[in-house]
Amino acid sequence: MKISEIGGEFELIKRLTDKEVRDPDIIKGIGDDCAVLRYTKEKYLLITTDMMVEDDHFSIKWHTPFQIGMKLMEINVSDIISMGGSPKYAFISLSIKKDTTVEFMEELYRGIYESAKKHNILILGGDTTHGTEYTLNLTLLGEVDKQLLRLRSMAKVNDLICVTGNLGGSTAGLKLLLKNKKGNLTKYLEPKSRTEKEGKIIAKYANAMIDVSDGLSSEVKHICDESSMGAEIYSERIPLSKTTIESSDSLNLDPYDFALYGGEDFELVFTIPKENIEKLKKEFSDFNVVGRILEKKNGICLLKDNKKLEPGKGFDHFA
Amino acid sequence: MKISEIGGEFELIKRLTDKEVRDPDIIKGIGDDCAVLRYTKEKYLLITTDMMVEDDHFSIKWHTPFQIGMKLMEINVSDIISMGGSPKYAFISLSIKKDTTVEFMEELYRGIYESAKKHNILILGGDTTHGTEYTLNLTLLGEVDKQLLRLRSMAKVNDLICVTGNLGGSTAGLKLLLKNKKGNLTKYLEPKSRTEKEGKIIAKYANAMIDVSDGLSSEVKHICDESSMGAEIYSERIPLSKTTIESSDSLNLDPYDFALYGGEDFELVFTIPKENIEKLKKEFSDFNVVGRILEKKNGICLLKDNKKLEPGKGFDHFA
Repeated sequence: MKISEIGGEFELIKRLTDKEVRDPDIIKGIGDDCAVLRYTKEKYLLITTDMMVEDDHFSIKWHTPFQIGMKLMEINVSDIISMGGSPKYAFISLSIKKDTTVEFMEELYRGIYESAKKHNILILGGDTTHGTEYTLNLTLLGEVDKQLLRLRSMAKVNDLICVTGNLGGSTAGLKLLLKNKKGNLTKYLEPKSRTEKEGKIIAKYANAMIDVSDGLSSEVKHICDESSMGAEIYSERIPLSKTTIESSDSLNLDPYDFALYGGEDFELVFTIPKENIEKLKKEFSDFNVVGRILEKKNGICLLKDNKKLEPGKGFDHFA
Repeated sequence: MKISEIGGEFELIKRLTDKEVRDPDIIKGIGDDCAVLRYTKEKYLLITTDMMVEDDHFSIKWHTPFQIGMKLMEINVSDIISMGGSPKYAFISLSIKKDTTVEFMEELYRGIYESAKKHNILILGGDTTHGTEYTLNLTLLGEVDKQLLRLRSMAKVNDLICVTGNLGGSTAGLKLLLKNKKGNLTKYLEPKSRTEKEGKIIAKYANAMIDVSDGLSSEVKHICDESSMGAEIYSERIPLSKTTIESSDSLNLDPYDFALYGGEDFELVFTIPKENIEKLKKEFSDFNVVGRILEKKNGICLLKDNKKLEPGKGFDHFA
């Protein structure tokens, strides 16, 4: 049977993995950006792992090895930050091609260490092997103050849905490259995680949090699924950068689609009680309100051009 | 520059990674089977990661998906056991081919869970993506009683070098497959880690410990390097199974070479003070003495047919 026949490998893995694990040391297993384990009196241990494959997550035509190394670290850091945590220790597995040069590896590691140093991460182990394409895996351990842990499941009715920075820039860059057009590629070639400090400030005031790896639409769905909630997203309020709008103009595509269904922006999506918005703004202001958490019965919808778009009817969760 | 020009990627990674990490929470970073971190009052946290690539670590011509899944778990478990630890939590990253069937994935996960259940491991996360070949990565967390932690660096002069079970069976199976010959393939197709219970019993009496992933010769060298010691290995005392000898006869090859330079046997190599041998035998007897730890100035040598073979002269560390 083809994997597509049962809804893709996301659904398949869900079926194949045992979600019901009973262990008092496990605060959260499968189903969030990180697993959460009991650790010290004040802290939980966080663990995340992300794999990048050549010509899927990067291309040696477009990315320098330095950029590939940096991306490997940043996408994992983002998972720790989105839980309210601090990244700590990295374990790197590489499958490299037989003709890989020393210079390529030096640049790859320079990118890895550049990001590691920025986020105070130590590299403590790994594995290196051979393949016919580059495959890179990073496992990152981190810790989080117990009271700062923010799960996808913590959203509450009437929370405002907010997003840091702006969205769609990574997808805009990818589309430009695919069409051989000029424009700003930085957000695609060098995605950056938000910092530990920013994540912790937001965590103080927010309920649920997640990072944008698959697009705003998908991230809001994850929060709603895990919190048993519904949501409305205000399309026109999704923040876009000037360069993303320029890119989408030159491509003749809708930049809001990049933000909703594109992904790899690694901004933070969080839900926050209305009364905490002003408090947060005093400490961190680079965010916008893009929606609201509703009761589950309302489902998830997109408000665009004064119309309410439902899933499958102008609005897709995973388009 | 080619990686081979600077001594292979093992040497390259050594150069590229920062071995001098200063952090009071790190008991051991790069350079052992697992990283060792501060954890609870009585225990350390262990972390290991291993990557398997199609046509390098397994072949879908020879291995069933069930066997591939089991191997992925067992090779990581073996790293935890060899530190005196208990495996606990696994994180699995898979890069799968586009035409992968549901049935293949079900069998792969059945193998993963079969081994996980045997060793009391819970699967808490992972990542699934696409590639043109199968690449599988597993990160395994475990814990170890502080007094049972056994590092490669703990060998002492005059310790006896011992090995559990028998060696060379995995390489014998691989060679048979490569030559299209019949014989016992189980040790190659279904490598098994020693159990947590066995590892802990040995850890009570042993000084240094490591598992056989690259062959006895290489593992003894790792222990000597990390402990600043030399060693002599008694070739004729290396335990071989009847089927390994049969296979080597039919291949017209030396079975001791399989044991010394083959690898993937996942038996335990440990160094133990002579006076502890009898105590260990009362609790666990499936081991043989195959050598002795010497002072560093003696280097590492192999005693074979009453001759002393030095590295590069009849004896290679990584042949």
